[in-house]
Amino acid sequence: MDTKFSVAIHVLILISESPQLLSSEQMAGSVGTNSSYIRKILSLLKRGKIIDGHQGISGYKLTTIPERINLLQIYISIMEKSKVHLLDIHQNPNDRCVVGNYIKSVLFEIFTNAEKAFADMLAGKTLADCINTMRNKINNDAQPNTI
Amino acid sequence: MDTKFSVAIHVLILISESPQLLSSEQMAGSVGTNSSYIRKILSLLKRGKIIDGHQGISGYKLTTIPERINLLQIYISIMEKSKVHLLDIHQNPNDRCVVGNYIKSVLFEIFTNAEKAFADMLAGKTLADCINTMRNKINNDAQPNTI
Repeated sequence: MDTKFSVAIHVLILISESPQLLSSEQMAGSVGTNSSYIRKILSLLKRGKIIDGHQGISGYKLTTIPERINLLQIYISIMEKSKVHLLDIHQNPNDRCVVGNYIKSVLFEIFTNAEKAFADMLAGKTLADCINTMRNKINNDAQPNTI
Repeated sequence: MDTKFSVAIHVLILISESPQLLSSEQMAGSVGTNSSYIRKILSLLKRGKIIDGHQGISGYKLTTIPERINLLQIYISIMEKSKVHLLDIHQNPNDRCVVGNYIKSVLFEIFTNAEKAFADMLAGKTLADCINTMRNKINNDAQPNTI
């Protein structure tokens, strides 16, 4: 299980929505993990220019409004990759066999399209969308039940 | 690197296109791996009802025409999962924190949509599409160069 991405979104919602500065210990308490793991996530988000600041008095802040941070940016920063990579192609097919000779270029095209569909879906969602979805759920739960 | 899926497509193209029955050793020679790895792939494809038959005289055959085998079926069989699963959600957020309480349901929806976009792209491509793309590339390479 690699939950770095989901933890990163959790942390960013906390940073965005909390009225006061939060320490990595407080964030770890909400996520249900340890603070050194949170600091690793924060460091990746900082390298990806999604947050700035540091542990301590100044705290961490988003570098821009949540409407301008999409989930693909977060994913790319957290996975430490330049683009979405989900499918690997075997690297040593035998080019003396006609299938072996062409398989890499055939699969590259198809795999790239599937990865792009996944990336586009993440790029189409912002941190603000996550926050709004959460607010709607909270509001719905707060409504008195009607018969 | 997990290349099971790309090796599976390679093997299925070989099974579909080879005029004679191929042993796992011959397939391994084209893929550039060892025959025990190929037998593992064949066993998963057989369990997924994409091929039938066995090593030896009868050999392996597709259970249907390549137009009716889509890449999602192959992926699901090879990854031994019931559906595409690409993103994990942290399982122990603190439900006494409002973000911790709602994060799983917010992320589940978004992650499921991204996984579905990837799955739909694979479902929209068949083994026949891969074979046709390969044939086109072979034909293009066979054309004499024109100035």
